[in-house]
Order: sequence, then structure tokens, then C-alpha cells
Amino acid sequence: MKIIILGGDGFCGWPTTLKLSSENHEILIIDSFVRRDIDKELGIKSVTPISSLKDRLDSWYKLSGKKINYLKFDIAIDYDSLLKAFNAFKPDVIIHFAEQRAAPYSMKSSWHKRYTINNNINATNNVLAAIVEIKLDAHLVHLGTMGVYGYKTPDIEIPEGYLNVKIQKENEYHDLEILYPSDPGSIYHLSKAQDQLLFSYYNKNDGVRITDLHQGIVWGIQTKETLIDEKLINRFDYDGDFGTVLNRFIVQSVLNYPLTVHGNGGQTRAFININDCVECINLAVKNPPGTNERVKIMNQMTETHKIIDLAKLISNKTGVKIEKVENPRNENAENELDVSNKNFIDLGLKQTKLDETLINEISIISEKYKERIDKNKIPCKSKWR
Amino acid sequence: MKIIILGGDGFCGWPTTLKLSSENHEILIIDSFVRRDIDKELGIKSVTPISSLKDRLDSWYKLSGKKINYLKFDIAIDYDSLLKAFNAFKPDVIIHFAEQRAAPYSMKSSWHKRYTINNNINATNNVLAAIVEIKLDAHLVHLGTMGVYGYKTPDIEIPEGYLNVKIQKENEYHDLEILYPSDPGSIYHLSKAQDQLLFSYYNKNDGVRITDLHQGIVWGIQTKETLIDEKLINRFDYDGDFGTVLNRFIVQSVLNYPLTVHGNGGQTRAFININDCVECINLAVKNPPGTNERVKIMNQMTETHKIIDLAKLISNKTGVKIEKVENPRNENAENELDVSNKNFIDLGLKQTKLDETLINEISIISEKYKERIDKNKIPCKSKWR
Repeated sequence: MKIIILGGDGFCGWPTTLKLSSENHEILIIDSFVRRDIDKELGIKSVTPISSLKDRLDSWYKLSGKKINYLKFDIAIDYDSLLKAFNAFKPDVIIHFAEQRAAPYSMKSSWHKRYTINNNINATNNVLAAIVEIKLDAHLVHLGTMGVYGYKTPDIEIPEGYLNVKIQKENEYHDLEILYPSDPGSIYHLSKAQDQLLFSYYNKNDGVRITDLHQGIVWGIQTKETLIDEKLINRFDYDGDFGTVLNRFIVQSVLNYPLTVHGNGGQTRAFININDCVECINLAVKNPPGTNERVKIMNQMTETHKIIDLAKLISNKTGVKIEKVENPRNENAENELDVSNKNFIDLGLKQTKLDETLINEISIISEKYKERIDKNKIPCKSKWR
Repeated sequence: MKIIILGGDGFCGWPTTLKLSSENHEILIIDSFVRRDIDKELGIKSVTPISSLKDRLDSWYKLSGKKINYLKFDIAIDYDSLLKAFNAFKPDVIIHFAEQRAAPYSMKSSWHKRYTINNNINATNNVLAAIVEIKLDAHLVHLGTMGVYGYKTPDIEIPEGYLNVKIQKENEYHDLEILYPSDPGSIYHLSKAQDQLLFSYYNKNDGVRITDLHQGIVWGIQTKETLIDEKLINRFDYDGDFGTVLNRFIVQSVLNYPLTVHGNGGQTRAFININDCVECINLAVKNPPGTNERVKIMNQMTETHKIIDLAKLISNKTGVKIEKVENPRNENAENELDVSNKNFIDLGLKQTKLDETLINEISIISEKYKERIDKNKIPCKSKWR
């Protein structure tokens, strides 16, 4: 198939690109490299030394014989280039990673709130408007977040996107299926809840075929393909804005820096390994919704853990102590979380559960590039209020 | 009170400005005059000859002795000016009319879809981010739309913003109150559904006090204050994009142009007279939500009618025939609609129901300015698909 990957240079986008290329799809990447610019803004860099996209793609071509092209522009701003790219490449599938993806970054300041909403909503709306404008029969796969559901929700297993409810009218109850009521916990999560409304509308009005993947917190760094050569290495964030919690704990333990838990660590979150993330997208590409089918929503996660339990796991393994710090987020101190991921199980996903071998691999990578880590960038300084 | 009116030069904004000024509030208008620019884009003009905002305000000062200042800039783009205005004026209340407000205009082309989402979401987010950034303790009153509820909803009375549902867990049912599931019928309505998520989030995270008014279709032109002098006259749109249905029928009848009903006219819609619109906003300003209160949502409408019944009413009165044309919208041919407006009734709203006298007044105005009407601009040419 012909696949456009929006944001194909990023943490999930890059390993997805290699995976789908290795499956012999023809890939075009569109990326503005804004994530690399943000590294400069925040004075951070990936623990792993990532090559330029050009070098990444040249190396992949040498190693695999597979040619991938890319275009550099910002899809949230440059609609004409997007339209031109869609028209020229005629993709069967468009995978949309091209959004600002960090909750703490979205809460840093008024500017960051405004950037995140403006960038994410216009990026998504531009993609949808372009598909409709040129009557492109493409399947749009979007990376959403588990965070649209929120964590103050009732004590039920979180379904995949839609919720059955009963509504009272006089003495009768009517059944109704609704989009799960969103309760986003940050401006970033809010932007994804707003995206859901865009998808729902363009699907209803224009019949756009869409899969929205509500992803958990990703852990791990490398995938089968990014491991082939150092030139293909994936990025690895450890800082307070872009680092994800388990990866951060591992970096902290390598530096013998206390494992910083926000509040009492009673927050339960959904997780997925980077290898499964890439495989889920592969499965989503292979299993598009049919014509006239509503937006297909799947929960892209494999397990749930309390943050404190992950900290204890790493602490017991490494001897590095846990430090409870004031929670910068505005959230419940504790929550339970039970999530359905039946769709991906039914599609055949072999789940990679939290595993000592993979954690060791992350430690080895952190150790290897230790001198690239700046301890001052570890704390999360972005406050919700 | 000190009140900023965003979009105070528009169809609802202008009469609201005069009403609140006549109640002795201190008013500052912020408007980009984009609505006047759109007149040029579409080659249309208000049936009534509206003065420039400067002339409107000079006249009001001469007639009432009340001084109103205004600033010209686009709140969706110029955040710094917004911040500066909030800081300098220190409003107790901010009334937000500053959004693209026509469903057909939002569907004209890809550009119009993108303009509407970009403009409306950034306008609202900028206002909210500015309130939080400078810790302004202001009450935000927003003009929303009945259209966020949608018209495919279950056969119940539409409540005011929130819906009680039951969720099943094993053999038990749990009660849950949710934001009414939105089902917007156009890109314009979608932007207002996305606004709701912004309000809900900033209220939850930052305690911003917000009233969201889900308004029905406005009919009528003049209010008590705009009638005082021709220099204060309100705008009156009749074109296929910005004209509202009853006002359009009256213009059509004056020109002996067939009353164009979309489809069979079985669509039921909620309506409100412009005088009640202005009074509702006055009531909302007087009755802000308390600290830590959730977003206050009120349905700003007074009655519901089927479109075909309104056409018959005008046709019977004037002898002008009805013409059923293909429906450019993507909607059910028929729907029922039962809406609660208990909040405004309880606040003491005296409802102006559809009334022969007021319809006569609109006819007289249309007749007076007949030569300003361009028949070619009457049909709705904007198609939903």
C-alpha cells in the first residue's frame, strides 16, 4: 500500500515508518522537525544520538534496499503543500502522528497551551479537509490517547471509544450509544478530545474512514528495525516534559538519581511497549473500517500499573531510592483503571508485558549514552495551576 | 460592572452593547470587523444601512450621554493585544460573540471550514488562556448554539447542557451526569462543540467562571435601543449564508420571491427573538455561576417550530408561494424537538413569542430598504457534501 506518515521522524513515527517499510509498503514521510526544534527550545536532547532524517533514510536504504522519501513542512500551517502531497502521492493510508504530544509541555505557559491547541486542531482539521477536498479514498489512522477518557470516570471497564448508556424518559429507559464522555487532564489531552469531535463529524458528513487509537504511556526505546544499526536508533526522552514515566525511572536509576514519584504514586495508568505500539499500527493499517462504518476506536495498551509499583520495581532491582515529590498535575491522588483492549487481542496482537529483559535493554542504552544526560532536566517543572 | 464585549459590532453583539450600556455598565468593545469584510467577500450587504462602529458609538453618546470605547483587533490572532486590554480594563464580565457564526458559510469550501475551526477555537482558547495567565476574576459569558445538541438525539426533552444517564456494570446501574453528547450538524456547530470542551477543561483546572448560552435561531432585527435612531440600526442579513430563516422568508415575501424551504421543511428548530436574546445575556450577566461552580449552561430559546409551518405562516399572510428546494444540508428530513429553557424562565425572562406585530415590523424595514436587496444572494449555495 501507499502510506503517508505525518510526523514520521518522531518517537512513534520513526519506528512505525521502518516497520511498515519492512512490510513492503511504499512510504512518504511528512514532518516539520518541530520536535527537534523543541529540543533546542528546552535545552534537551535525546539520550540516544539520533541521526538527521536524511541520514536515517539513507542508512535504511543501504541496509534494506527500501527507498523512503520525505517532505519537510508543517501540516498545521501549510495546507497547500499538504493538498499537493496528497494529490501527487495518492495514499491508501495516512497515519497521523503530527501533533504536540506532551502533557507537561502543553501546560508550561500560556504560549504552550495556545501552541498545542492551535497546532493539534489545525493539523487534524487540515488533514480531514484535504481528504474531503480532493475526494481521497484513504484510511486515516490517528494516534490518540487513553487520556481522553480521564481518570475520574465511573468504576467500569473503559470500553473502546463508545459507551452504552440508558436515558430516562418518564418511567421508561432508552438505550443510547455515545462517544465515551471525555474528561481530559491537560491541554494536550483536551486537544485529542477535540480531535475526536472532528473525526466524528467528518466521518458522519463526508464518510471519511478513520481509525483513532487511544494509546497508553509508551515504554521502551528500540524496535526490531531501529536496532539494526546505530544510524537508525530511535529517540529516547528522559526530561520532565517529554520523558515517559518508566523510561524516566530507568534513566534516573542509571544516574543514581532518586526515582521521583508525583504525589503518593497512587495513579494507575495504561502502558504499552514501543514494539507493540508499532505492531498495533500495523494491525490498524491492515484492518481498516469499511465504507459507511463509524470511526473505529481501539485502545492501544496492554497493561495497567500504579506509578508507585513501577518505581518499586526499578528501586528493588537497582537499589536506587524513591522520592515522593509534590504532584505538579491537577489530578486525583489515587485511581483505579480497568481498560478493554479486546479489539487488538482479537486482531492477533501478541502482547509484550513489562519484562525484565526489556528493562535491562533500556538500562544498557542509558548506561551507554550516560554522558548525554543532563540531571537538571529530569524534574517536571511544568505546573498545572 | 465593567464589561468587555468581544464581537460587539455584530448582529447580537451590537444590540447587547446598547442594552448593557443603557443599564449603566461600563463597556469596552473589541471587534476585528471581520463580519464587515465578509460582506465584501460575498458581495452582500445588510438590508439595513449600518453605520461604522465609530459613528454608532458617537451617536449613542450624543443620544444617551454614555461613552463606549472600542479596540480593533482580531482576538484569534492578536493574543498580546487581548492580554493588554484585559490587564488595562480589568473587566468583571467578558461576553464572547467573536466567532464565525454561520453554518452555511462554514461549509462553503475547504478554506471556509479551516477558517471557521481555526478562528473559533483560537478565539475561545485565547480568551481562556488570557484569563488564567493574568489571574483575572472575570465571568465569561459565551454565545453557543442549540446546534451542539444535534437533531438525531433521543426522544427526550433536551436538558440544559448536562444529561443524567445510567451505566451498567454487571447487574448494577450507576448514575452519571455528563455533558450532553454533542452531534453537530456543520463545521460551525462542531466548533461550538469543541468550545464546550475548552470551557469544561478551564473551569475544572483553573476555576474559570463560565456561562455558555445555547442559543436558538434568532429572528427580528431591532431592539428597544437600536430603534432610537437610524444611526443605531442593527444589521439585517437575508443572504443564503448569514440570513436566518424567518427573516429570510420575510425578505422573500416583500420581493414576491418564493419562500425557499429546504427539503420538505419538516425540520423543527428552536427560535428566539432578538429582544429576548439581549435580555437573556443581561440576565446571564446578572446571575454568574459561583466560585467552584461548573460551567453554567442555559438554553437561550423560547419556542420551537417546523420550518414549513413558518413558511406557511408568512405565505398565508402575504400570498407569496412556497417553493421546496433540494436541501443543501446533510440532515434528517424531519425531526421533533422539545427543549427545556427553565433556567431563563426561573430568572424571570418574559418570553416574546412569534408575533404578528413584530413580523410586520420586519416587513416594514424590508420594504423601506428594498432597493438594497440583491435577489441573487437569496439562495443558499453552500452544499454540505
